[in-house]
Amino acid sequence: MRALVIHGGAGVVLARMSDSDRAAYDESLGRTVDAGFEVLDKGGMSLDAVTTAVRMLEDDPLFNAGHGAGLTRQRDAELDAAVMDGRDQRAGAVACVTHIKNPVVLARRVMERSAHVMLMGTGAEEFALEQGMALMPGRYFRTAQRLAHVDSLQRGEDFPDVVPATQGTVGAVALDTAGNLAAATSTGGLTNRLPGRVGDTPIIGAGTYAKNGVCGVSATGEGEFFIRSVAAHHIAAAVEYRGLPLRDAVSELVHRILPGLGGLGGIIAVGADGTIVTEFNTQGMFRAERDSSGRRVVAIAR
Amino acid sequence: MRALVIHGGAGVVLARMSDSDRAAYDESLGRTVDAGFEVLDKGGMSLDAVTTAVRMLEDDPLFNAGHGAGLTRQRDAELDAAVMDGRDQRAGAVACVTHIKNPVVLARRVMERSAHVMLMGTGAEEFALEQGMALMPGRYFRTAQRLAHVDSLQRGEDFPDVVPATQGTVGAVALDTAGNLAAATSTGGLTNRLPGRVGDTPIIGAGTYAKNGVCGVSATGEGEFFIRSVAAHHIAAAVEYRGLPLRDAVSELVHRILPGLGGLGGIIAVGADGTIVTEFNTQGMFRAERDSSGRRVVAIAR
Repeated sequence: MRALVIHGGAGVVLARMSDSDRAAYDESLGRTVDAGFEVLDKGGMSLDAVTTAVRMLEDDPLFNAGHGAGLTRQRDAELDAAVMDGRDQRAGAVACVTHIKNPVVLARRVMERSAHVMLMGTGAEEFALEQGMALMPGRYFRTAQRLAHVDSLQRGEDFPDVVPATQGTVGAVALDTAGNLAAATSTGGLTNRLPGRVGDTPIIGAGTYAKNGVCGVSATGEGEFFIRSVAAHHIAAAVEYRGLPLRDAVSELVHRILPGLGGLGGIIAVGADGTIVTEFNTQGMFRAERDSSGRRVVAIAR
Repeated sequence: MRALVIHGGAGVVLARMSDSDRAAYDESLGRTVDAGFEVLDKGGMSLDAVTTAVRMLEDDPLFNAGHGAGLTRQRDAELDAAVMDGRDQRAGAVACVTHIKNPVVLARRVMERSAHVMLMGTGAEEFALEQGMALMPGRYFRTAQRLAHVDSLQRGEDFPDVVPATQGTVGAVALDTAGNLAAATSTGGLTNRLPGRVGDTPIIGAGTYAKNGVCGVSATGEGEFFIRSVAAHHIAAAVEYRGLPLRDAVSELVHRILPGLGGLGGIIAVGADGTIVTEFNTQGMFRAERDSSGRRVVAIAR
């Protein structure tokens, strides 16, 4: 069994999306899930499939990660990402990097080539340079739309936020033929937030988690609530230790625990048998899924 | 029932401690647990008791947190801390702050006076200034012993590390008369590490967790392994959902799961009934505990 699910953020305001907006998102999500699934179809690792998919979403200005990231109140892009390998619970994460084109690639370098799990800020960028990665100027990340968004929030105006910039994240979870699960998540963070704020994305157990034989999970939404509920690990623990079906474990988190704390968002997950679960308590979640049974879904609304 | 347990790091090399070293650690741990317990005895909140205790340990150069923090390979102190309130799973954390005398106090401000859970670096310090907190010069944190330690590591020399600088952390967990649990953890991090490295201390669910009716947990040790195992939340989930006694849940984590990943360290925890558990897979762990039954223990070795 091979399976890949991706998300591009929860919290969509459907009424604000034009037909051409929807078509653009559908096209990007479909292209990304196909490219990631091709890695699996060629016998590649789930870790490579999720890295490929998240890197594509980081490069696409439609989504709040990498190029097109949400901006802080200082108008800077501060990027967070994490990746986890279900084989051995190895993990890598970066937070508050400002010059890294693909934070998910740097997170993977941290996992594979450092003794650490998490690096942040200029220290993470020093490590990137030592790894031979090039830095990007900060302006690469700032799109006209994100600048307009942060400016309108600072003027106290409403903004026709068709792109889920405030709660957006991108992520991917995959199962490969060898039975290995992997998960990756990347974000530009909340628009107009305090500089230095870190959400759930780079927090292993909150926004990202994977364990072979159990499940892989990637979250999107109001990160503070996913941190407080240790969301991704809560789901994995419910599957592993309480014997809950993955669908029920995800549903409990999204529809009972998160609302109990007051949190909005969504979850994508893949079980050890390749079951794909997508769940959200917002109006929509950008998502796409594909598996080796031939199933292929691209969706935004419920 | 009132209970308080504190730790000052695991991984002690007992043979390297003189009698006067031991006396100094015993005195400091005893004074700290008494001061924190006095908060509980006066009817105060567990949140105040753990903040008081961790602040005292941050101020004491014997321990790797605040003044006397372990230094990066650039000879800087980069401090991490977290606090969690078991009543509602509210949490606050700071990472990589370099001018904050008491990171645990700033973590609590993040919890109580911001919309966020985690702030890092200069953004966290900007928030501190907005909160009216003074910044300290970086040299306040660097003691002669920690400078000598990082220098000796960089020369490739052995160092008589009586202070557990390499794996040190400080933390506290408490239960107050109202039945509220709280946990707090603070660290200077690994000596001679890459700048920007973040361990488990400020990661909610890894190094710090508290939930009323379940348990409070603070970890110390090789942080990467506590992140990968989502250690503190693993223990809480085992108690809440698998019905394991707290002692068994802690023991499983410390003696089975951590060694399975190759990790060293220890855990302190308090159950909803006031049961105190301290467990470690290292030679020793600096710790002290006190409860309303009159029990008072200060210990380093097993």
